[in-house]
Amino acid sequence: MEEKKLTGGFTLPGESGQEALTLELAKRWGADVIRDSDGTSLSDEILNSGYGIYSTICIIRDHNEWAKEHPETLQQTFLSTDPRTAEKDSLSIRLLDDFYEEQFKVNDSEKALAWWQVWDRTANLTVPEKDWSYDASKGTVSVNNATPWHSYTVSFLAYRIWEEISMYNHVTNDWGDREHLMPIDPVYPEVQEYLLSWLDGWCVSHPATTVVRFTSMFYNFVWIWGSDERNRNRFTDWSSYDFTVSPAMLESFEAEYGYRLTAEDFINKGTLNSGHMPPSEHKRDYMDHVNRFVVSFGKKLIDITHRYGKKAYVFYDDTWIGVEPNGSRFKEFGFDGLIKCVFSGFEARLCAEADVPVHELRFHPYLFPVGLGGAPTFAPGGDPARDALEYWLHVRRAMMRVRIDRIGLGGYLHLLPDHPEFITFMEHTACEFRKLLELHKTGAPSSLDISIRVLHSWGSLRPWTLSGHFHETYMHELIHINEALSGLPVNVRFISFEDVLTGDGLEGADVVINAGTGGTAWSGGDVWSDPALVEKLSAWTAEGGVFLGVREPSAIPDGNGGQTFAMKQVLGVDMFRPSLMCHGKWDFDVTEAVSPDGVYVIPAGISFSHKRTFIRLMDKTVSVFAVDDDGTPLITMNSFGKGKGIYLNTFETDPVYNRFLLNLILFAMGMDLEQELLTDNPLTECAYFPESKSLVVVNNSHDPQSTTVHAGGKETALSLEGCEMRFISL
Amino acid sequence: MEEKKLTGGFTLPGESGQEALTLELAKRWGADVIRDSDGTSLSDEILNSGYGIYSTICIIRDHNEWAKEHPETLQQTFLSTDPRTAEKDSLSIRLLDDFYEEQFKVNDSEKALAWWQVWDRTANLTVPEKDWSYDASKGTVSVNNATPWHSYTVSFLAYRIWEEISMYNHVTNDWGDREHLMPIDPVYPEVQEYLLSWLDGWCVSHPATTVVRFTSMFYNFVWIWGSDERNRNRFTDWSSYDFTVSPAMLESFEAEYGYRLTAEDFINKGTLNSGHMPPSEHKRDYMDHVNRFVVSFGKKLIDITHRYGKKAYVFYDDTWIGVEPNGSRFKEFGFDGLIKCVFSGFEARLCAEADVPVHELRFHPYLFPVGLGGAPTFAPGGDPARDALEYWLHVRRAMMRVRIDRIGLGGYLHLLPDHPEFITFMEHTACEFRKLLELHKTGAPSSLDISIRVLHSWGSLRPWTLSGHFHETYMHELIHINEALSGLPVNVRFISFEDVLTGDGLEGADVVINAGTGGTAWSGGDVWSDPALVEKLSAWTAEGGVFLGVREPSAIPDGNGGQTFAMKQVLGVDMFRPSLMCHGKWDFDVTEAVSPDGVYVIPAGISFSHKRTFIRLMDKTVSVFAVDDDGTPLITMNSFGKGKGIYLNTFETDPVYNRFLLNLILFAMGMDLEQELLTDNPLTECAYFPESKSLVVVNNSHDPQSTTVHAGGKETALSLEGCEMRFISL
Repeated sequence: MEEKKLTGGFTLPGESGQEALTLELAKRWGADVIRDSDGTSLSDEILNSGYGIYSTICIIRDHNEWAKEHPETLQQTFLSTDPRTAEKDSLSIRLLDDFYEEQFKVNDSEKALAWWQVWDRTANLTVPEKDWSYDASKGTVSVNNATPWHSYTVSFLAYRIWEEISMYNHVTNDWGDREHLMPIDPVYPEVQEYLLSWLDGWCVSHPATTVVRFTSMFYNFVWIWGSDERNRNRFTDWSSYDFTVSPAMLESFEAEYGYRLTAEDFINKGTLNSGHMPPSEHKRDYMDHVNRFVVSFGKKLIDITHRYGKKAYVFYDDTWIGVEPNGSRFKEFGFDGLIKCVFSGFEARLCAEADVPVHELRFHPYLFPVGLGGAPTFAPGGDPARDALEYWLHVRRAMMRVRIDRIGLGGYLHLLPDHPEFITFMEHTACEFRKLLELHKTGAPSSLDISIRVLHSWGSLRPWTLSGHFHETYMHELIHINEALSGLPVNVRFISFEDVLTGDGLEGADVVINAGTGGTAWSGGDVWSDPALVEKLSAWTAEGGVFLGVREPSAIPDGNGGQTFAMKQVLGVDMFRPSLMCHGKWDFDVTEAVSPDGVYVIPAGISFSHKRTFIRLMDKTVSVFAVDDDGTPLITMNSFGKGKGIYLNTFETDPVYNRFLLNLILFAMGMDLEQELLTDNPLTECAYFPESKSLVVVNNSHDPQSTTVHAGGKETALSLEGCEMRFISL
Repeated sequence: MEEKKLTGGFTLPGESGQEALTLELAKRWGADVIRDSDGTSLSDEILNSGYGIYSTICIIRDHNEWAKEHPETLQQTFLSTDPRTAEKDSLSIRLLDDFYEEQFKVNDSEKALAWWQVWDRTANLTVPEKDWSYDASKGTVSVNNATPWHSYTVSFLAYRIWEEISMYNHVTNDWGDREHLMPIDPVYPEVQEYLLSWLDGWCVSHPATTVVRFTSMFYNFVWIWGSDERNRNRFTDWSSYDFTVSPAMLESFEAEYGYRLTAEDFINKGTLNSGHMPPSEHKRDYMDHVNRFVVSFGKKLIDITHRYGKKAYVFYDDTWIGVEPNGSRFKEFGFDGLIKCVFSGFEARLCAEADVPVHELRFHPYLFPVGLGGAPTFAPGGDPARDALEYWLHVRRAMMRVRIDRIGLGGYLHLLPDHPEFITFMEHTACEFRKLLELHKTGAPSSLDISIRVLHSWGSLRPWTLSGHFHETYMHELIHINEALSGLPVNVRFISFEDVLTGDGLEGADVVINAGTGGTAWSGGDVWSDPALVEKLSAWTAEGGVFLGVREPSAIPDGNGGQTFAMKQVLGVDMFRPSLMCHGKWDFDVTEAVSPDGVYVIPAGISFSHKRTFIRLMDKTVSVFAVDDDGTPLITMNSFGKGKGIYLNTFETDPVYNRFLLNLILFAMGMDLEQELLTDNPLTECAYFPESKSLVVVNNSHDPQSTTVHAGGKETALSLEGCEMRFISL
């Protein structure tokens, strides 16, 4: 392929007062679009510089004047106090003692009070209404006829008086006495009317804007702050629906579904309902209800945007709840583009899989002095170019598999002049991105004929992600598996248990992966008690499928206080549990896994992580390929009919582990490891674009690597610099 | 105390053909009794040498001729096949495929078949009788109308055709084609009649015997061997009742209790019912029924023994099931002595606590070429003196607290001449034992005014032990706690949950300890779902008690697939579980625990074990005294009313850990650490006998130690050799 200077597909954050820098970097990085960010604005000089203009709108905030006139339209949530022990037959509980009072205000309206509950958590019973009362002046609930030494909680409704993303930015950037923005709730007709009119006016007053970048729709992910600095982040979940709650939403739910939810559907013994847990039927119904509402009112806003000749993109974070970009209703919004902020490959796949015309990635690091974890980035001690390279190594391999149309950044451009190495690196990244995009435009890259289904509670509604970024979910094996898969030359689909039970989830599948801690949404929890699930997956395996379980796949309570793998007959292993304390274990030898073409399945030099779960063999016929220091099997394979059950005790993504996963799958399928589309050095990977006969080879390590690539029917030997991406015409 | 050569209280194993050695060692070790062992006999020269004579009888074996004439009286058990997967709508399961066929024979009599069950373990349903049949010629059960891909098991009755202890000794000592001894079951009147008459004859023919040493009564602990050498020990539990089962026993149970048990009461989804799990009501009833039978028929045998002027001692191992030496019926047997084999201090306490005139310990190592784990003892590579010293260091400190009347050995004396250092060491041990016994005869040693209750499912029925020796149960924190307590100068009682709920379990208690893995008999399992238990223990703590939880105390299912501590309000900590994945954690500082008199509670140089359980603080007021590498709290304390909740993540007994446990208890009770009855060096311990104003100080380490002892109102400074025991008159 001939080298040419490609441009475009790049969104640059501009900044008023930094016009020269903005335009210089726009040129250097080949940007075609300039955007604003939370905390910055674009001057007329920038707006009129001929670039496309993204304008960021968080539609539910920045209306404080109106909100103050309509305080009953603020967004809400259910909260539950921490348990308080009764020392006698009465006790008093101050509702906001545990919570950040700058975020919450008790909603004690008559309508709201009807939803409150007081619980005796020791007896697991609600306290009758006659036995408790609320004192609004003190903000306390008094409980009478309490049982001494039982623990009590109050579930109540609270207004959220500080929009959480703004709250985070405010606190992180020390915005001092800048006014706290309040979130208003479009569930109310008067809010809808106000917002439609407001957006109309906004469009009129922003003629330069080419794309309205919605951040995002109406409801934020859940972020409950505590009163004490030693427990500020009480609950943080990127995927929960608690912040959509209001008496109005609950009433419309009841009208639609014919039954009434309770506070306990949300509070759930104080554990709430994180996305890591299997959703109840009630939660599924409620999510569906909110999603329908968000799509229907969201569409009206997008229609206005379109009416003014502007495009509408949506940001896949922040107030994304109810949007569900991988759900079946998403295309009804009419969005023109989806923007996902990314650290990892799986996030690029998540974005690419949404049904929308333009897929854009917003790279990290964000142009802020500090990153999400509080570590310095564009500040002394930070190394943003190093950070950007790490993220790029992860994202790049996923972008070799799927087409991404645009990339970009966010934040404050004025931080950049101190970091010239970052500027150079982004120029390089933009160039690699554009070359890849050119290839994708010729057609998709070739894949191995292997169809993998990742099986969990959310299925295709929430593919690839585990409710958050990698660094927020690294303790789950499945995010490591997903990250590995994001760059492998295989076909991947995410399916739910429902898809197996009543749908076509297993049709055409070669491999099913179930990975996670027992009881979670990723392993599946109680759904595995349904014998039909075991039947279908066993029958499918016996016909030649590969069922790959990681950590505690298919785990369900065993009735003796422990857990057991429902799929143990296929996996050939089961969890250890206290009731097996006196049972013997099958003795075994560790054997080597060697492919039909004589290659070791376990790459040289791999060092396996320690076990996460004690397991035991079900039979002597199970092969064990690796063990932990204490002899616990780490990798096993069991023959089941014509198929195989594979068990991995843990999995940690890195370039060699990723290749090991692919090797193991090829091995279980009886395939050679020296395959078309593979390199012979696990630290390198490739993609082959057959339409243009183009080969892309990457070095995922920081050291130089030599590799031989099998692609396009040829063997290509090459040496790569550390982190290099090489484009080759075959 | 003046030194004098004490003798007696020592049981020596004699051996025919080793007369000179027998008599020499009897003199050297000060023995007053000579015994036989399994595999040895005593010659007339020994029998007539003037020593007391113990004769070992395992009453239910060694009657092969009679047993062959009455094969229907052999002992039995329920067995369950391993799960077998149906690949179509029928399958065939050979019953003994999984089992050691030298141990078991299918009982397919009409009476037995009525108890068999076939289970669809996938659907958790029994298969109707019309859908299965047994083919006696093939030993198989055929299942029709099976659901493809479901797993099936067969629960059936089997005769045990090789008495298990004899089987073990036979296999371990390569006894070749020596006849396999069969166990007969005294549940049948004809067996009772035979055994009574046999014992009568035996007494007549053994005039030299002064003590009949029953080993033990009728039913062995459960030891199910597998068909495959790679899984020979399928199930091993020192405390289970499965080997008492027979249609006759089950019928008498039904007559007594008014309900019928099923095979599943024993098979329990293939997990059986080990002593580590909380017993069901059915199991409790059944144990009670068997115990009543064993005591009532056992008493008849003891009466015969007494009629011949002999004493009757019982060995607390092997066929001890149904004896329950710490149970309320034990004294009804009329035994004159109880003999416990010991490796550890807790076993000495277990023995001492039984209501019987004479308490004897049989020391380890057993005079066999190899020990229980198969490692050499009296064989090349072994070092029996070293082993004996290790065990003695553990047992000795318990013997400082409670009176033991006799000690002894077992096995083959002819192995000793090669091990003179063992002979010397035993001479020394016997001397220390006798000096201690002299002191106990003057009255009990002083104790701190601290009453500890260890709370678990078995309570006082099974104090101190966790169903087996220390090396068999070391993975449970409670055995470490019990071993620590066995030598501490405190008062210890074992109580059950029932004792708390309806009895006087908490009366006078200063400390309650609950220690174990969630769901086990040691932590308690589902019993904690009873709010009354939480109420009573909370109220007791609030009044000034110390509730000390270890690992997963009071853990119950939380309804979300995880477990929670029912006592979390008292402990101030709770288990981490998947449903809390998105919840924040209380930040904390590690603080130092210092006693009122200014002493560090955590002894210098202690290195804590790693966490066994992820836990989280419930509140910021909880004190954290130690953390694991990852910041998980290892030791916490929470104030609750006037009392304290203490949490230990794990506990591993050793001299310093033991002292740490005592320190922590004193600290929680607000007491000084420099106390009367304590030494100031944690590697040393003491006992003070006020009646004789005698002080005993031991060095529990192998190195010399200096220590100052507070006892008898004085401070005594002394230096001890490694392992030394010093007797001092104050």
